[in-house]
Amino acid sequence: MKPVQKLTITEVALRDGSHAINHQYTLEQVISVAKALDDANVPYIEVSHGDGLAGSSLQYGLSRTNEMELIEAAVSVCATSQIGVLLLPGVGTIQQLNEAAKLGVGMARIATHVTEADISAQHIARSKELGLVTVGFLMMSHMAPVETLVEQAKLMESYGADTVYVVDSAGALLPFQVEERIRALKQSLSAHIGFHGHNNLSLAMANTLAAIQEGATWIDGSVRCLGAGAGNTQTEVLVAVLEKLGIETGVDVYKLMDLAEEIVAPILQKPQEITKGSLVLGYAGVYSSFLLHAQRAALKFGLDARDILIELGRRKAVGGQEDMIMNVAAELAKSNYPLSSV
Amino acid sequence: MKPVQKLTITEVALRDGSHAINHQYTLEQVISVAKALDDANVPYIEVSHGDGLAGSSLQYGLSRTNEMELIEAAVSVCATSQIGVLLLPGVGTIQQLNEAAKLGVGMARIATHVTEADISAQHIARSKELGLVTVGFLMMSHMAPVETLVEQAKLMESYGADTVYVVDSAGALLPFQVEERIRALKQSLSAHIGFHGHNNLSLAMANTLAAIQEGATWIDGSVRCLGAGAGNTQTEVLVAVLEKLGIETGVDVYKLMDLAEEIVAPILQKPQEITKGSLVLGYAGVYSSFLLHAQRAALKFGLDARDILIELGRRKAVGGQEDMIMNVAAELAKSNYPLSSV
Repeated sequence: MKPVQKLTITEVALRDGSHAINHQYTLEQVISVAKALDDANVPYIEVSHGDGLAGSSLQYGLSRTNEMELIEAAVSVCATSQIGVLLLPGVGTIQQLNEAAKLGVGMARIATHVTEADISAQHIARSKELGLVTVGFLMMSHMAPVETLVEQAKLMESYGADTVYVVDSAGALLPFQVEERIRALKQSLSAHIGFHGHNNLSLAMANTLAAIQEGATWIDGSVRCLGAGAGNTQTEVLVAVLEKLGIETGVDVYKLMDLAEEIVAPILQKPQEITKGSLVLGYAGVYSSFLLHAQRAALKFGLDARDILIELGRRKAVGGQEDMIMNVAAELAKSNYPLSSV
Repeated sequence: MKPVQKLTITEVALRDGSHAINHQYTLEQVISVAKALDDANVPYIEVSHGDGLAGSSLQYGLSRTNEMELIEAAVSVCATSQIGVLLLPGVGTIQQLNEAAKLGVGMARIATHVTEADISAQHIARSKELGLVTVGFLMMSHMAPVETLVEQAKLMESYGADTVYVVDSAGALLPFQVEERIRALKQSLSAHIGFHGHNNLSLAMANTLAAIQEGATWIDGSVRCLGAGAGNTQTEVLVAVLEKLGIETGVDVYKLMDLAEEIVAPILQKPQEITKGSLVLGYAGVYSSFLLHAQRAALKFGLDARDILIELGRRKAVGGQEDMIMNVAAELAKSNYPLSSV
């Protein structure tokens, strides 16, 4: 690998990981995880509903505990780690951002679909006004060509983002695709570049290393792999691999291993594996919310749900376009199904 | 990636995977898995005790079912897939190889520690006489420098091996180390080159892709990740990734996904995760049999077992040298412990 400057790790088990436990974190769990992460010297710890501030809803799943309570508790037990929050404009609002800032968070990540950076302008600007480390978070990054990704990242930078992340929400990117994306961003931006990987294709670690190789210096991980889909890049493993590669993170790998085994693993009702469902989502490159709809449509039209998902991936269907699923299924049923020759 | 010729997949869930279930495969399980693999067009299916033919013992763990019965049953249900066996000279003998050949297996893989290829000469020669596809399997490949690995592989080739595998038994290799190993073998051998990965550092897929990139064409996978340590490269995920990369395997990915979810997952008592134990083994690069001994030694000397394992990895301790563990622990306790600054 090329020489790499020190990396900045953000731990997402208390945010993305909340998907893995249906947003059922208790105050006690968040306190014990945050305390251990602080003790292991992890610089940033994200605490929010899986879908960001105000994500707790019938649509996205109700949180067990009010997220502001969780954030406040996490802030209170951390001596040096900064607490971060995720905000999806349209789900959360400026008001929640203000509230989180008052509670003492140090970082805000403003997340949009990869082609919708323009809706992050006000939130990024407000985050900067609040004096927070401000991150632009481009979700479903596999769905846009490299040039579009660069444009959108530049928008976020122009609004004031200190760092812009390539977010592989569906775990659908291949290492060479990560490389070309990070390389292009590195050439066009002066902001720091970040990478957030998912493991649906068992490539979270490979993609993370590819991103680092090309100059990403802000990296997300999740202890014990806790996250949506097949989970994220596993933080304690990442730090171990980076040590073997001679890349510094400042994080104590023994303490992370202990946290994963003794505190986080018991929280999980079932371990993170690459199941058929998560694999298909990564393979097709679609939203996890499509899975159930595709299964229903498959039943109705006598199709394989996978063919529907793959066709949706080809058409770059985005969240909110769930109606499209029945239409695609109807088309597939009429055509020389299966279209995909897998 | 460079253009790649068609890959030959060997499925190891019925051999390496037997470690994950304490060698408790039933006849019915082996039949249903082998049938589904045959139906999915997987060319080679390895069936043996996790430690190879005759591995069933108090030392390595007793199999629930006689392996020759399992092999015979697997052969009988496969229309096109060939059944393979693993043999570690010293554990299994020529007699078991003869017996397996009589039952109709099509492939034998002769496995030795990476520096001990010379003990495979007779077994490889006999396998060739029996008309079997013959593979030399260099275990713990991370423990030898590249030049030694090449020498040892050349020995196996000279005995008649059609393919020589780099076997990352401890899941300890990093992608660049896989690349340099495969590249060197490719330059020095005319035999096919194979790669067998483990996921202790979450790098099984990354390492497998690195191996393919450098010219390995025989690749091992394990459905649902079933294998020793943190498991192997997950076959159904690998085939999905290779399809996305345009690399042909001839294997039906949908059928593999279904097999993983419906037949293999229910066999597992607990899913394959990267636990603290398996991570430490990959990080230190030592045998899994060292773990318990190191924990005992740590208790005795008031040390952290991880420091003992890392020191054993540095000294390249091999299986059978378990006595060394107490000595290392005693030395560490006397020295400016911890030696490793993790």
